[in-house]
Order: sequence, then C-alpha cells, then structure tokens
Amino acid sequence: MNNYSSRLLDQVVEEFAKLPGIGRKTALRLALHLLRSDSNNAERLADALVKMRNEVQFCKFCHNISDEEVCDICSNPKREKGTLCVVEDIRDVIAIENTSQYSGRYHILGGIISPMEGIGPEDLNIKNLVKRIQEEDIEEIILALPTTIEGDTTNFYIFKQIKGMEIMISTIARGISIGDELEYADELTLGRSILNRLPYENTLKR
Amino acid sequence: MNNYSSRLLDQVVEEFAKLPGIGRKTALRLALHLLRSDSNNAERLADALVKMRNEVQFCKFCHNISDEEVCDICSNPKREKGTLCVVEDIRDVIAIENTSQYSGRYHILGGIISPMEGIGPEDLNIKNLVKRIQEEDIEEIILALPTTIEGDTTNFYIFKQIKGMEIMISTIARGISIGDELEYADELTLGRSILNRLPYENTLKR
Repeated sequence: MNNYSSRLLDQVVEEFAKLPGIGRKTALRLALHLLRSDSNNAERLADALVKMRNEVQFCKFCHNISDEEVCDICSNPKREKGTLCVVEDIRDVIAIENTSQYSGRYHILGGIISPMEGIGPEDLNIKNLVKRIQEEDIEEIILALPTTIEGDTTNFYIFKQIKGMEIMISTIARGISIGDELEYADELTLGRSILNRLPYENTLKR
Repeated sequence: MNNYSSRLLDQVVEEFAKLPGIGRKTALRLALHLLRSDSNNAERLADALVKMRNEVQFCKFCHNISDEEVCDICSNPKREKGTLCVVEDIRDVIAIENTSQYSGRYHILGGIISPMEGIGPEDLNIKNLVKRIQEEDIEEIILALPTTIEGDTTNFYIFKQIKGMEIMISTIARGISIGDELEYADELTLGRSILNRLPYENTLKR
C-alpha cells in the first residue's frame, strides 16, 4: 500500500480502489478531486451512500430496486400484467426500459446460476418467479438472460421449473447488431442469425 | 436525468457521475456494486470521505496533504533542507517520491497560472515559496512543473520573483523517454534533447 503522506487520504483511496474498474491511480485522482473541490461534494456523496444503503428496498414483486414496497413499474397500471421479462439485474431493466419497446413487467433474478462463483438456483429469485406465475395471471415470460453458459443454464433451469404450466416461454432474438457489417460478426452469432431468419415482410411492419 | 426507479440510487449515481472520468454508466455500476456488496464498503467509503474532508490538513511549510501540522517529508530530519522541488500538486510529489532519486523537500503550488481557468499567481502558494527561500536556508530550487504554456508561464513568474536571490534555479531535464524509439518521438522533445545533450561520460556515472 502506498503512503500518500496522509492516512485519511490513504483510506479514501483504498475504499475507492475496491470499486470495480477503479485502480489506485484513478482512486487517488478521485480522492484528490473531492478533497480539493470547494463545494461539499464529498459530504453529499457520503450522505447519498449511507442513505442508499440504509433506506433502499427491493420491490416485493419483481425485486427491482425501489424506494417503496412496490416499484414504479409494478405499481404502474399502464404496464401489461400478463408479460414478465426475466433479467439478471437492474441494469438490464434500465437497458430495456431505454428502448421503449416493452410495456410488460419484469422479474429480476439478482444473478445467474454460476457454480464457479458458488451461485446456485436457491440464491436467485427463481422460486418467487414460479410462485408469481402460479398466482398472477401471467401469459408469457420472456427470458432475457446473457448468452453465456451460465445464462443458458439458468434459462434451462427456469424452463424445467415451469414447463408444465400453460404459459408461453420466449427468449429475446440474437443476431447481427443493426448497422454491423457481416464480415466482422462472430461466426456463432452470424450462424444463429441465419438459422433464426425472419420473413422479410415481418421486418417491414416496424 | 435518468430514473433508476429509486431516488436514493439516483442520488448516489448523480454524485459519482460528478467525479472526473466517471460517466453515468460507470456511476451506476459503482452504485449497484456498493448496494449489493454484503460487507459495509459503502459505509466505509462514506466514513473515510467525511473524515478526510473534516480532518485533513495541509503542511504549513510545503502545503502537502498531511495529518499533522507539518508533513512527514518536511519533518524528516534525513531530507536535505537546502533543496526545494516546486511542483503543481501532490500527485507530482508521489511520482517523484516513487523514483527514490530525490532527497530534498517539496513546495506544492496547488496549481499553475492559467488565465483561461481564472487561476492567477495570487491563487497559488508562490508568496510562501518566496518567503521560504528568504527565511529558510535554501540553496537550490528545482522547477518541476508541466511543459505547457501554463507551466512555462508559472516557471517564468517564479523566476522573476526570486531571480535577485542567491540561489540556484534549475528545472528537470526534458528529453526522450528511456526505452523510446527516436522515430516516434515528437519533434519538439527530440529537438530539445539534442540542444540539451550531455557529455556521454556523465551518463556513465549513474
């Protein structure tokens, strides 16, 4: 551990450096910025952090982060009640919300099955998902997990849990990104985009 | 401003996003990391920030960040008293200390003269520098400011303030980095490294 001539500064650098993607040089830059800035940004950040940790809740339905017992999306009467989009975490909710293409509700697993990291099905919000499907009037669930071995495993686990029920299970389309050149696409994606080709007419309707 | 379904989370993201080099996506990643991590990293960061802002001092001699009235370097009897290295900020002190090639003391200006940003000589610790040279037994000051117009202006301003005094004023060597190829060096640096060439013998002694 470096010594920046001040243990107080050291401690801030050390805490910043624990954050993902923040090395010691960046941590020092952030700490010095907060130390120097006249406005009380450091206090405001400290305050916001403590408040968030103490007061934030998770929606009792979808497990989204929320300030209330039920999140804004679940309590919004305009959202379709029949469709649930199953995602890994809240960042996926934000990404999908930003597309403005989805009007159903979500179910946040809080991770995906990963034996390497010791995350099993019981660590995720899968039981609640099954319960929601049984109790609420769900017609379709959309699996929107990452296309990794872990994501596929989780998809399959969920599929097995609910396959007897009368709901549609779909998964988001994988293919070449809009604007991408075919020659730079990886073979797996390109191959799948050929297997899952769509009638051209379908793409005109959008 | 995005709405991440929680105002508490929003506030943390907003405060993180004010930091230099941190965009909103990174800010969200940091906030979610702190929200999820089981250990009380968020509280520790908050605590360290508040403590740093409230308790950190600046060395009364060199203006380095310090937990005491006088910093570790200034109070170290092993450091040469006769030499002062003038730097822009504490990061330069850390960089020079890491070389283990300097055993004198420092003087931290706290910035450089920049009319564009409204920073004049009176905003920097230049008066104290002149006072130190008059009162302490200084034999040499080493100007180690950045090679920019602002750095050169500051160098020249300091030079004018102290040129009557009986001290040596030096500046750190500029030239081709060790290990660099000449063909990739910029012309200004290469030109200066030729003008300021050294007797070959001098380089053998190190």
